[in-house]
Amino acid sequence: MGSRTVNGGATSAPAAVSVDKGVDFANYFCTYGFLYHQKEMLSDRVRMDAYYNAVFENKHHFEGKAVLDVGTGSGILAIWSAQAGARKVYAVEATKMAEHARELVKANNLQDIVEVIEESMEDVILPEQVDVIISEWMGYFLLRESMFDSVICARERWLKPSGVLYPSHARMWLAPVRSGLVDQKMSDYEDAMNDWHGFVNETESYYGVDMRVLTKPFAEEQRKYYLKTSLWNNLHPNQVIGSPVIIKEIDCSTVTINDILNVRASVSSAISAENTRLCGFAGWFDVHFRGSHENPAQQEIELTTAPSEDFGTHWGQQVFLLHPPVRAHQGDNLMLNFSMTRAKENHRLMEVDLTCEIRQTSGTLLPLSTNKFYIE
Amino acid sequence: MGSRTVNGGATSAPAAVSVDKGVDFANYFCTYGFLYHQKEMLSDRVRMDAYYNAVFENKHHFEGKAVLDVGTGSGILAIWSAQAGARKVYAVEATKMAEHARELVKANNLQDIVEVIEESMEDVILPEQVDVIISEWMGYFLLRESMFDSVICARERWLKPSGVLYPSHARMWLAPVRSGLVDQKMSDYEDAMNDWHGFVNETESYYGVDMRVLTKPFAEEQRKYYLKTSLWNNLHPNQVIGSPVIIKEIDCSTVTINDILNVRASVSSAISAENTRLCGFAGWFDVHFRGSHENPAQQEIELTTAPSEDFGTHWGQQVFLLHPPVRAHQGDNLMLNFSMTRAKENHRLMEVDLTCEIRQTSGTLLPLSTNKFYIE
Repeated sequence: MGSRTVNGGATSAPAAVSVDKGVDFANYFCTYGFLYHQKEMLSDRVRMDAYYNAVFENKHHFEGKAVLDVGTGSGILAIWSAQAGARKVYAVEATKMAEHARELVKANNLQDIVEVIEESMEDVILPEQVDVIISEWMGYFLLRESMFDSVICARERWLKPSGVLYPSHARMWLAPVRSGLVDQKMSDYEDAMNDWHGFVNETESYYGVDMRVLTKPFAEEQRKYYLKTSLWNNLHPNQVIGSPVIIKEIDCSTVTINDILNVRASVSSAISAENTRLCGFAGWFDVHFRGSHENPAQQEIELTTAPSEDFGTHWGQQVFLLHPPVRAHQGDNLMLNFSMTRAKENHRLMEVDLTCEIRQTSGTLLPLSTNKFYIE
Repeated sequence: MGSRTVNGGATSAPAAVSVDKGVDFANYFCTYGFLYHQKEMLSDRVRMDAYYNAVFENKHHFEGKAVLDVGTGSGILAIWSAQAGARKVYAVEATKMAEHARELVKANNLQDIVEVIEESMEDVILPEQVDVIISEWMGYFLLRESMFDSVICARERWLKPSGVLYPSHARMWLAPVRSGLVDQKMSDYEDAMNDWHGFVNETESYYGVDMRVLTKPFAEEQRKYYLKTSLWNNLHPNQVIGSPVIIKEIDCSTVTINDILNVRASVSSAISAENTRLCGFAGWFDVHFRGSHENPAQQEIELTTAPSEDFGTHWGQQVFLLHPPVRAHQGDNLMLNFSMTRAKENHRLMEVDLTCEIRQTSGTLLPLSTNKFYIE
């Protein structure tokens, strides 16, 4: 579930730094306690259709089975699982939203099947192992929020060896893009610096204090904020100017936390637009509902957050801008090194290192600088 | 210092609930680590002029003296104290902003006088008691952020019996106001509810889940957000439609934390505008720099955040809207019961209970409902 604000937990797999629960709540969980936020996600038709169809077109996975919904929120996936024939659904939710989920379950007459448990997934004890783990855990660019850790933990502890995961697979994509945001953000940055210089002069004149020593850290802070922080956007497909490439493939039944602590890829993408401006890169994801090898889906469903005219989602894409943008031509080949890790101070946020070289059709190699980005 | 976001600490006086430091940082302190935020406060000319004049027109308080700056931020007050002749200034700052303050002090050649200490005020140990405590601790409506607790703690531990506080006094004000915000917020609320009802219908139609049981909590959440949360605004003086009244007076040299845990007042205000709409109430504050009885200021300075055409501050006023607004006439007398306490989950936020009765000039008494507000 994509959430604007993320201001970390123990799992069975080797974990990142152990996160204080109170701090994790203040930084992250608290946003999920609001019905307004749940409604935003429940109003995302692409998201809702994908999970709805995945469940109801694969009832064989649910009929008579035990199901675990990790991070049930309002309870929607647990309710669908029950309506699709589950014998028992454990709906785990760390925030007070669990109380609303409980009411919703009762109002839909499913309290004999769905048990809502207000607890963090890492701490919960279930009376049995389950046949299905269903969860909508995806954050911006898939891994922001690091909620997938909780799903992996749940799988390790509570999924039967023969069990299936909903979704079963996930992929991260990257593509070169054009966007007016690159001009807007540079302009915002320049305005902030102009304002700063005026402020420094005034503070010296009126108040006798020389602030120039702070210019460098102020500029760095504004560069990080305006130029180096990835942006949420729902891009139009015609803003994608080269072939999208897969930078990570995840089999949800086997992936470990270690596998996702550092997402690295070396890929290349050919520019497809004739004469264009490479303004940066967009990252997005898709997930698939394929069941398992032993127990496949009857109807495979895909949920994609790729740029789309009509089927945008609340996740949008994450846009990493290049300053300055560069002119690019059809056939130019971009060679990209991508590396994403968790932020030290907050495991739910990410840092990205992105290196790009352009091999032009003429043969000339244009090296571009290595760029650091922050997914906040 | 007014700060948009606040997401508490042990003092010598009987404290509120002890606050986890990590949580307090995630909820509150972190916003003060940004230079952009410091610049906002440093660009507030009314704020800057008041403190600047208070210090430099009362050098006798600083010359050869030991000074403590509580929450030094960028270090500005500490620097002025040193420039006004202090022998030694202890500039205490809980966030990494202390590093910038240290650089600023050095760049202004005051490192022999100003010692920046990166520590929370409640934990710091100073080598001596001080003659002056200077601090800009005021939040929206004076007490939001509860930073004054740290100043009281500092006073109890580190101020000499003969010492002075900058500022020395503070007052909270309330006044009846008119504002188009009342219509805007009601409209926002109604839009949110209309949207919700459409959402409930669609979720039933498309997804077979009856969300009606959540309508009541959703409405309550939106009422709290749109109608019951006080708003930041810089009001024009002609929006004040009745006599402003003082609801709290504080002598900074004697006030205790207990005195400010619950701010209560029963006051009355006469409507001064001819035929107007009582849309709610505005709260603001002023502080004064008067020195102490034994050691008064030579030049008393006032810093006010009252509605002003030309001298608005970054604090603005806090606006508490009445839904629905009521017609009011010159001479109508408003009898108000005001009570403000700290929010249970976060001692840096406030809750307000406000009861209002109108005695019209005809003699008729109009009781108005008791209203609960949240200062977030």
